[in-house]
Order: sequence, then C-alpha cells, then structure tokens
Amino acid sequence: MSYFFGVDVGGTTVKMGFFEKEGTLIDKWEIPSSKDLGGEASLRVIADAIRERLRKEGATLQDMRGVGIDIPGPVLPDGSTPRLTNLDWGEALNIREMLSSLLDGIHVEVANDGNAAALGELWKGAGEGMNSLVMVTLGTGVGGGIVTDGRIISGVHGAGGEIGHINVSEEETDICGCGLRGCLEQYAAAPGIVRITKKRLKEMDATSRLRGLPDLTAKDVLDCVKEGDPVAKDAFRVMCNMLGKALATVAVNADPDLFVIGGGVSKAGSILTESIRPYYEKYAFHAVRNTPIVLARLGNDGGMYGAARLVLS
Amino acid sequence: MSYFFGVDVGGTTVKMGFFEKEGTLIDKWEIPSSKDLGGEASLRVIADAIRERLRKEGATLQDMRGVGIDIPGPVLPDGSTPRLTNLDWGEALNIREMLSSLLDGIHVEVANDGNAAALGELWKGAGEGMNSLVMVTLGTGVGGGIVTDGRIISGVHGAGGEIGHINVSEEETDICGCGLRGCLEQYAAAPGIVRITKKRLKEMDATSRLRGLPDLTAKDVLDCVKEGDPVAKDAFRVMCNMLGKALATVAVNADPDLFVIGGGVSKAGSILTESIRPYYEKYAFHAVRNTPIVLARLGNDGGMYGAARLVLS
Repeated sequence: MSYFFGVDVGGTTVKMGFFEKEGTLIDKWEIPSSKDLGGEASLRVIADAIRERLRKEGATLQDMRGVGIDIPGPVLPDGSTPRLTNLDWGEALNIREMLSSLLDGIHVEVANDGNAAALGELWKGAGEGMNSLVMVTLGTGVGGGIVTDGRIISGVHGAGGEIGHINVSEEETDICGCGLRGCLEQYAAAPGIVRITKKRLKEMDATSRLRGLPDLTAKDVLDCVKEGDPVAKDAFRVMCNMLGKALATVAVNADPDLFVIGGGVSKAGSILTESIRPYYEKYAFHAVRNTPIVLARLGNDGGMYGAARLVLS
Repeated sequence: MSYFFGVDVGGTTVKMGFFEKEGTLIDKWEIPSSKDLGGEASLRVIADAIRERLRKEGATLQDMRGVGIDIPGPVLPDGSTPRLTNLDWGEALNIREMLSSLLDGIHVEVANDGNAAALGELWKGAGEGMNSLVMVTLGTGVGGGIVTDGRIISGVHGAGGEIGHINVSEEETDICGCGLRGCLEQYAAAPGIVRITKKRLKEMDATSRLRGLPDLTAKDVLDCVKEGDPVAKDAFRVMCNMLGKALATVAVNADPDLFVIGGGVSKAGSILTESIRPYYEKYAFHAVRNTPIVLARLGNDGGMYGAARLVLS
C-alpha cells in the first residue's frame, strides 16, 4: 500500500506523478491529452499508463494506495462531472467510478484543477506546513481553490473556490464568459488584462510601446509595467485593485493562513503580489489585514501534487 | 460518556442546553450574563451550573462527552479569544483551557456565536440532514457562519464566515463599525436598515408613516414594507440587493447546500428570503443559481445547539 499517483488532466497534456510512502515523488512524465477520444477512452489511456508504470517498478495494483485525478471543470461530491467544456470528454460522467473500475476497484479521488493546485501548494509548495490557504490561478481564466483544515472546499455544485466569478465591479458593461458582469476574471485573467489595457489605450493619450504591438498579450502588458509604461501601469493598477478586493472578500469567508497567486500571469513575479498588497489592505477586515500574499512555488506541477495528496486523506 | 452541554454566551444571558446520547435535549435554561465579573469568574459560574445540573441528574463529570461553548467574538484555532468587545471578560483568554480546567479536564470546544448558530441549524434546524450551509444572522450586526462537510470554517484569525464585512458597495460614504466602507453590515443589520431608511426619507418626497416615528427601528421599517410604504420598500430593496450580492459572493467561495437567514431581523419572515432571491440570482454564478435561501428554524437556540454539536465531532 505504498504507491500512489497524481494525475493532472489539462487541455493539451496529462501530467502523471508517481509517488511512494508519504509523498516522495519517484517519477513524473506527461502524456498528450487524447483529442476526440471521449472521457472513457481517455481514462483508459491513463489507467494503462498507471499499470505500465507499476509494472516497470515491479509493483501491482495491490501495492497502491490510490489515484488522485484533477480535471479542468466542476467536480460534484460523488466524483462525477457534468459535460466539460474544456475537454473533449463528451457528456457527464463519473470519473471516480469509471477510473476505479478500470483499475480493479482501487481508491480514486477526483478534484477540480484549481482546487487540486491549491491543495498541492499546501502540501509541497508555498503553504507547506500550514493548515489552510486560498490559491488564485491567473491564466486564460481565473481559477481558485480554498483549502481549510487541509481539505478542499469543493462545494455541492463543484463551485467552491470559484474566485474568478466574485463580483468586483458594478460598473462593468462587458459580459464575462459566465454570462455575468463584473467578475474578477474580467480583470485578472490574461484576456482580462489585455481587455483593460486596450480600453486604457483608447482612453489615454500617453505614449506607450503597447500601441505598436499587433497582437497584444498579457505578457506584453506585464513586461511594459516593469519598463514603467504609463498605460500598462494604469491597467495593472486596475487588475491589482480588483484582485485585492476579491481576496479581501475571500478573507472574510475562509480566513486562510495564506494567499497564493499562481498561473501563467504570476510569472510577472513579486511585482504582482507587492502591487496587490495595498489594495488588499484597503479592503480587508482588520483581523485578516496581515494575511500574506505570496507566489505559487510548484508552477505547472501544483495540480499533479494536489491530485496525489487527495488519496492520502 | 453520554451527557454533553451546549453553552451560548450572549451579552445579557447565557443559554445552557443539557443533552444526552446523540443529541436529545434533556433540559435548557438561562442564567444571566454576569456583568463586570471578568472571563474567569464568568466561566466559573458556567462550570458550577454544569456540575449542579449533573448532580441533579445523578451523574458526574465522568459521564460527560464534553462541553461546547460559543461566545460573541472571534475564536482562534487554539480555543483562545482576544479581548472581547461584546462581553466584560477582560483581556485575551483561552476559554477552552480555562473551562476545561474548571471541569477536571473534560473535552471543551469553543466557537464564535455566528459560527455555532450555523452549525446548530445544520444539525437540528433548517439544514438538518444536509452536509453544508451558510448562515447569515441579521441582528445588531451581521454575523455569519460557513459549515462545509459538517465542519465550521472558523479561520486562522477567527474571521471565517464574517460575511457582514464583505464589501458590497464602492459608493458608500458612511463608515462601518469595523472602519471600512461598504460592508454588508451597513445595509443589512438592524441599525443599517434604519440608516438606509433615514437617508431615503430625506431623499424621497413620498408620504410615509415612518416620517412620524420618533425612534425609528428596523421593525418599524419591516412592518411598513408589508403595508406597502414606498420609502420602506425602497430601503428594503437596497438591503435585499446587498444581501443577494453578498450571498452570491459567498456561493462562489463555499458553494453550500443552503443559505439560512436568521437573527432578529429575519422575524420579518418569508418576505425577506423571497425578496433576496431575485437579487441573488442576478449576481449568482450559473452553477449556484438555484441554491435555496430559507429562514432559520432554531431562533435564539441555534447557538446553543451548535455549541453542543461541537463536542460530537
């Protein structure tokens, strides 16, 4: 009962982590996400990879504690998921049951990817040794995860920690991908930063290197912030204000030990956490005003670690 | 090991509940909150009441599972509390340790009163049989409690579920008791409703029975809402909008089975939950849009039940 796997299913690759004992990583590798295979066949590919890796180790399924898997979509309390818009997995399916039955009934746990990344950071990352944290993942969307007492709050509809859809503005006129207006995601995801910057470029007269760029990206904006570009700095302020406000809201819900910022946008580095800080303090209830805001440590491996951690509890 | 107590400490009375087995209430009674006694002496009064009640039952401390106690203030993870502004209990003290030592070392658990009320409603009230709920207590302040997987999220600073201090308005110019601006409490606590109504009375020309009342109370406003008073209805709409917005925010944090509205203001009845509903749905992320919003069932006993429930887990 010594081995276990963490499997992080993304849109283009599946990250596999092979662990033993209380969490020693023996091996990690990636397999391409199978397009158009559907959920069951995709899980079969994952199950085969697990059996194969065990065989190489001279081990069998009897030596396994279990498999944790995370997916880019909501996970319901029974381990099932509705139709996923981020994967070609077809209709709703019960991942926990299906993967378990493909592996002779071993213990399987399932989580949302943002939630798994938060648990991973608590276990082996920025929150190591702590009891709770809230992670915000800034990428093509804004994902999130709340972990308290070492456990993910996944919610009855799988919407626990969906921090990207906290309302942070009454004035917004554009519509979020979710259909609402004023969601954090509209300001803090990569497309959100580009959106604010384009608005600012129209509204402001200031000279900006960004005006010459044909396909403006979030990375361009963040690079220009560091160069002191006035338009980029202005858009960045809006983003950090919205993040600070949203984290202050989360703080009077979950009151975690720590906030962790991850995802592609967080590659901007400490300028991001340092710039969120004053806005956070402006909105934060006194008891939570000093809660640290730090960068994630596990990069793209957070989900894989968190998925693995699921089977230890 | 069959008996246990739930003790709900309020500003004027201490509610005592005496339970047996898995939760049968044998007896409940109140003792006055001792003014100016300080924390230790107040806990001694409670400990004496517990010993006395056990004696009457022909039982001893050896027959006890434990005592759960809730207080009107933040409770830290170690069972301690900073100086309480709502009680004359003096400086910071560790309630868990102190009460336990007054009762020969029996198991003591401590919670914030809003959190305990939420747990009480999950155990024996509006959320009976469910796994999670979020309760909002509308009284002289706005308290709250988040319970997921049957456990209170109390937070590292005791600020878990402090829903009253979610920012719901950027435009607010008045300052909340906590020092911030735009907190839910400024609109949905009894003094908040009075505050909004007074503003509306100045701003609106409409005839209103409220204009003749010397000491306007929240109850007056809510009574007038039912009579169709235009100013009262307008203030009530503001309140319900803010509550709907705040609950939508909580829903993408904790995604509970149920929202429960309690506290003195909730005596207004189903008009409150029905009027919050459309605002909630306006702001709610699609996955959580149907989460029910209901009235609390345990009235003033919620804290006592929840405190008792603490020692069963």
